[in-house]
Amino acid sequence: MMRTSVSQYMVKRPLYTEDDFTQEHEKVCRQHKTMLNHVQQYFTCNRQRAKNALLSVLPIISWMKIYRIKEWLMGDVVSGVSTGLVAVLQGLAYSLLASLPAWYGLYAAFFPVVIYFFLGTSRHISVGAFPVLSLMVGTVVTRLVPENGSQANITGFEGLSVDEQRAVVAASLTVLIGIFQLAMGLLQAGFIVIYLSDTLVSGFTTAAAVHILVSQLKFVLGLKVAGFSGPLSIIYTLEKIFGQITSTNLHDLVTSVIVMVVVLTVKELNERFKSKLPVPIPIEVIMTIIACGVSYAFSFNEYYGVDIVGRIPDQFEAPMAPNPQIFQETALEAFPMAIVGFAVAFAVAKVYSNKHDYVIDGNQELIAFGASNIIGGAFKSLVSSTALSRSAVQESTGGKTQVAGVLSAVIVLIVILGIGFLLEPLPKSVLGAVVMVNLKGMLLQVCHVPYLWKKDRPDCVVWLVTFVASVLLGLDLGLAVGLGAELIAVVYRTQFPRCCVLANIVGTDIYRDRKDYVDLYEPEGVKIFRIPSPIFFANIDFLRGKLIDAVGFSPLRVLRKRNKALRKIRKLLRKGQLSLTSKGLQTAGSLSGSEDESSVEDLDLPADFSGLPVQVNWRAELPASISVPPVNIHSLVLDFSAVSFIDVSALKGLKMALKEFIRVDVEVYIVACDPYIFEKLKSCEFFDEEIQTSIFFLTTHDAMLHILQRNPPLSVSEKVFKNTSELSNGVSLRSRDKTDKAPETRF
Amino acid sequence: MMRTSVSQYMVKRPLYTEDDFTQEHEKVCRQHKTMLNHVQQYFTCNRQRAKNALLSVLPIISWMKIYRIKEWLMGDVVSGVSTGLVAVLQGLAYSLLASLPAWYGLYAAFFPVVIYFFLGTSRHISVGAFPVLSLMVGTVVTRLVPENGSQANITGFEGLSVDEQRAVVAASLTVLIGIFQLAMGLLQAGFIVIYLSDTLVSGFTTAAAVHILVSQLKFVLGLKVAGFSGPLSIIYTLEKIFGQITSTNLHDLVTSVIVMVVVLTVKELNERFKSKLPVPIPIEVIMTIIACGVSYAFSFNEYYGVDIVGRIPDQFEAPMAPNPQIFQETALEAFPMAIVGFAVAFAVAKVYSNKHDYVIDGNQELIAFGASNIIGGAFKSLVSSTALSRSAVQESTGGKTQVAGVLSAVIVLIVILGIGFLLEPLPKSVLGAVVMVNLKGMLLQVCHVPYLWKKDRPDCVVWLVTFVASVLLGLDLGLAVGLGAELIAVVYRTQFPRCCVLANIVGTDIYRDRKDYVDLYEPEGVKIFRIPSPIFFANIDFLRGKLIDAVGFSPLRVLRKRNKALRKIRKLLRKGQLSLTSKGLQTAGSLSGSEDESSVEDLDLPADFSGLPVQVNWRAELPASISVPPVNIHSLVLDFSAVSFIDVSALKGLKMALKEFIRVDVEVYIVACDPYIFEKLKSCEFFDEEIQTSIFFLTTHDAMLHILQRNPPLSVSEKVFKNTSELSNGVSLRSRDKTDKAPETRF
Repeated sequence: MMRTSVSQYMVKRPLYTEDDFTQEHEKVCRQHKTMLNHVQQYFTCNRQRAKNALLSVLPIISWMKIYRIKEWLMGDVVSGVSTGLVAVLQGLAYSLLASLPAWYGLYAAFFPVVIYFFLGTSRHISVGAFPVLSLMVGTVVTRLVPENGSQANITGFEGLSVDEQRAVVAASLTVLIGIFQLAMGLLQAGFIVIYLSDTLVSGFTTAAAVHILVSQLKFVLGLKVAGFSGPLSIIYTLEKIFGQITSTNLHDLVTSVIVMVVVLTVKELNERFKSKLPVPIPIEVIMTIIACGVSYAFSFNEYYGVDIVGRIPDQFEAPMAPNPQIFQETALEAFPMAIVGFAVAFAVAKVYSNKHDYVIDGNQELIAFGASNIIGGAFKSLVSSTALSRSAVQESTGGKTQVAGVLSAVIVLIVILGIGFLLEPLPKSVLGAVVMVNLKGMLLQVCHVPYLWKKDRPDCVVWLVTFVASVLLGLDLGLAVGLGAELIAVVYRTQFPRCCVLANIVGTDIYRDRKDYVDLYEPEGVKIFRIPSPIFFANIDFLRGKLIDAVGFSPLRVLRKRNKALRKIRKLLRKGQLSLTSKGLQTAGSLSGSEDESSVEDLDLPADFSGLPVQVNWRAELPASISVPPVNIHSLVLDFSAVSFIDVSALKGLKMALKEFIRVDVEVYIVACDPYIFEKLKSCEFFDEEIQTSIFFLTTHDAMLHILQRNPPLSVSEKVFKNTSELSNGVSLRSRDKTDKAPETRF
Repeated sequence: MMRTSVSQYMVKRPLYTEDDFTQEHEKVCRQHKTMLNHVQQYFTCNRQRAKNALLSVLPIISWMKIYRIKEWLMGDVVSGVSTGLVAVLQGLAYSLLASLPAWYGLYAAFFPVVIYFFLGTSRHISVGAFPVLSLMVGTVVTRLVPENGSQANITGFEGLSVDEQRAVVAASLTVLIGIFQLAMGLLQAGFIVIYLSDTLVSGFTTAAAVHILVSQLKFVLGLKVAGFSGPLSIIYTLEKIFGQITSTNLHDLVTSVIVMVVVLTVKELNERFKSKLPVPIPIEVIMTIIACGVSYAFSFNEYYGVDIVGRIPDQFEAPMAPNPQIFQETALEAFPMAIVGFAVAFAVAKVYSNKHDYVIDGNQELIAFGASNIIGGAFKSLVSSTALSRSAVQESTGGKTQVAGVLSAVIVLIVILGIGFLLEPLPKSVLGAVVMVNLKGMLLQVCHVPYLWKKDRPDCVVWLVTFVASVLLGLDLGLAVGLGAELIAVVYRTQFPRCCVLANIVGTDIYRDRKDYVDLYEPEGVKIFRIPSPIFFANIDFLRGKLIDAVGFSPLRVLRKRNKALRKIRKLLRKGQLSLTSKGLQTAGSLSGSEDESSVEDLDLPADFSGLPVQVNWRAELPASISVPPVNIHSLVLDFSAVSFIDVSALKGLKMALKEFIRVDVEVYIVACDPYIFEKLKSCEFFDEEIQTSIFFLTTHDAMLHILQRNPPLSVSEKVFKNTSELSNGVSLRSRDKTDKAPETRF
């Protein structure tokens, strides 16, 4: 019985095999749901479910009902105005990343925001352009429409300028991304973000920051460099830029450097005096306004050749139908973009939902972004997700719900329809400088690498592979490579597990690695092998190898040698060169005979003693010409406590391995096996005449007690076993025991 | 002490936390090898190592030394001749798969075999063309050189016929594959075959069989159909073939059907009378010879328009330098081919090495195939690997070593230089029929699917995904998709593990799923949660969710509510609306006050009782206006026995989860943690003031005894706890205990 005496552990209970335990303790018969049940449940419809479905499709209903006007509205207004200003600036800047005229980025801060207001479940993210995604769009845009006009034969491109063609490509791509997202949302595929681990996202976004940095260099330096696409494009771009470095426009460079230094400094101050400032100083907006004024006053564009934003139309463009030919051309690239866009937005949304304690729904988010992008794309908006910096502004200035988002969209609307022309003299280099400054956080993720290297080597390799692949091969291929590396890392962790041989800590029921401790008890002839990981196709061979190393012999080889020896003995007996005496098998005259080569397969079967008057004792010495490798264990215990799953191919391998041991008369025990795995073994025909359920024991100690009972230690028999080599040259024998089913070790 | 009484399990030992155990049982300090040691060891050079290195690079030395001329030579000769005949036939047939003139396949049965003789470690495989690989070459060849000549601007193609251009492409590709294999061998990358699981290979080869079948249809039907390449090419090919089905050449069709029926029948007989036949009837060779004769006698080509093999040059072609431009064009496709070629050869070699009990070396095999393909490619040979059927012939007819291989190469040499012209009238449809018949085994792998579906759902999905992707997208892309699916399957198995709450089996130290048994003991306020898998980025959120489900409350939410309540109490005390009496906190007058919205982050910190005269007992009832969700457990035990690894992001998540519980005064214990994981937690700064190493116990029972000691069951205090809800409305209190560091549960 369980006792609670002071710091004593005392247990007295029957010894259990799994079978005994099941007999003594009745298992409750549990009805597991079949797939049909699940399907039925999923499609059951009643009033409550219908209402829930409606609420989950239009989350605005639930949060509008609890909207506290007095407490929340003020915050939302302040936040909306601040976010709107930032959104205008970022919209212009991120259009440059996408190689588009600046105003398309403004659309991304309007249409998607309005749609998300109705469909989104996050109350704090600011929907709109996301730099990484804009850059990915830019890669596609420059691939399909290079500087000198489209090469691809796309219908509908006739008579359009390069910029117009690019706008069509970007808009169609946005619709396609939206379609992918909507489809994934409807298929309930929101769970895929799980596969984008922190490490992967960190490596990927750092690489994206490098790409963005390089793409903005040309604006900051005031150079005209055509975009490249495809693997290694970053190298080609850098080569081109440094080839032209002497043509740098000093006015652009100086303006950019001033903007960068000021913004960086003020941001640092914002951070340091966070607690004292009511709202962080919107330095980017201030600098932009100043730059606009200065550029206008001194006619930067005209006199100094500074590239400016230029015309911003004071009306929306007419909506367009997406181009199906572009869908075909960009499908492979749109899919990773759909995932990246959603994953980033979801990650940011999760941070705020955790902080403010409400629930967001991945699938509904997919639907919301899908709809936003489809409708946004139809109005030529750039693809939308969220930008970390903008969401931070929305939340930190007091935004409580997406009402703030809608208000920011109103600000953008005012800019588009009313005062957009004021932004026309803004130098592109200033926008580039603002984008670059905002990369600081992403680039600083590099500092995480040494920490990872020290703490978790595989994770670090995943980071590095993702980063290098994303930088060199481009973001879409890089993401795929990173994903592969990440999955391989998971497999790798379980592929070369640290196996060990356990031994008993004297006086306890505890078993530990025998290399780690000194006060251990290891009965002669018993090996306890711990399998410290799941067993599956990638490690079953490794584990078998380690097991053979641990016991010190290959059971298959022993079995074959024994079977060969048996054939020889049988032959010699027939020829009369060997005779059965009371002392055992005795050599009569000189031995001869070549190896029997026929039917190699038979050698792998259990030893067949038919035709022999006695069963050979392999542990004793055999006649001189017959040699069989020694087997110095009689019991093998496999500790399955850490085996969390086993797959079909591993199951076959395990079965073979166990059989090989059983066939050389080693008793195999499996302990601490998970009940579900035990069930699976049963259903997969793991058990047969040789491998029986009775080899399963509850704990290592149960198995050990059982073994010691069968093979009492330090008795005469063990001494005999120990001293076999010192015994006479005679062959030990035992008469065959017909009642004994499984070959059994006797001394 | 350990006792071996009859079927009794009795243990009496001290109760152990990991810390106690480490103190009592000294751990041996083991010196683990650093990376430097490994590198040093790897580059150490001495005489023995140099000799071993030489032997491992030229395995022929070791097996030639033990060659038993008397016993082995005869077998090798018989086997060599039989294999040679089959190799000629297969060489011709597989060239058709590669869309090349027939004789290039013969070269593949000569050059690579000779190189492999010196470098290979397998003694039984027959090196040469492999149908799947030939087909993959064929896809590349038809992509670069379609029927109407090369479209790509490849230098050196001027003035060459289509067939000559194709031969150049195939040869360059072969060299490139060889370079990849050699490089992998030198980089010791032979282990990659581990990732090609049985399931993956089965799905992939079945899909390959389908492709081969479709590619041979045109020969069997006697149609001229241009090859397609790229995704969905199989659909286009079938469409084209069925569009032309009315132009079928009946002579070709009839010949093929006859050949197929005869070969299938005789093969069946071979199988049935395996034991009685000394050597299987070489029916393919016989049928080929008959077909040659008949075709020649009746001038099939001339009169009936049957497509025949045609001219076979009676000399070798001059070697050529590979074309680097083709390297560029085919690099992405050559890599999977290098892996497939090696993987198949290695898998076959392993079967025979296991059977005949010798060792093969994956890296040396890579080097051998790399060299074979580089040199073979230079002589315009088709890429080489091994064919299962041919290797089976070589082994079953008595081949003992690669001497048989070399002899088969001699037969091929005789055919090339001497009697090749005899094969010229052979109809291509007969070759196609022979290839098709040999697909039987590969296609029958489909029968494995229902078994897999029943036994192992994820494995079955991997098979199906690999198969469908390989059929539709082509073999190279299909392999990549299959590999991805396989890796995701491994992750998936540990991603949604079956967590359960454990309870004590009465009267034992055994803990089992409480839903499974009836005779269980679960002390009030204790939850034992079993984590049945490794913990990593893909399941940490799932596990946290399950843990919250199991305990029935979200600790973070409770903590926030408590902290909010504290703020309110503090405010009320300040206002004098609440007063401290001997009975606890008493309401004085009506309560009022709005929620305090400032600094949400602070709510996640441990409850701060400063400024309060007493510590609040959350389990007692609070004044009416203050409500905090109940916490009905005082101890949480996490069973880590199946946690075989934990990655950095999961570690962070776990730490957060534990802290949340500790902060709502639940004591957390971790039991049965792997020593290596314990070490890792230590090195990754898992432990701090809140989470201490003392929470680790050796077994669940140790932790349970410890908990029962701290919280004696069924005593007055538990009754109080049980009946809290029935107690008076007063707030229970306890005076603050300054000496108590960790917040502790008291009743």
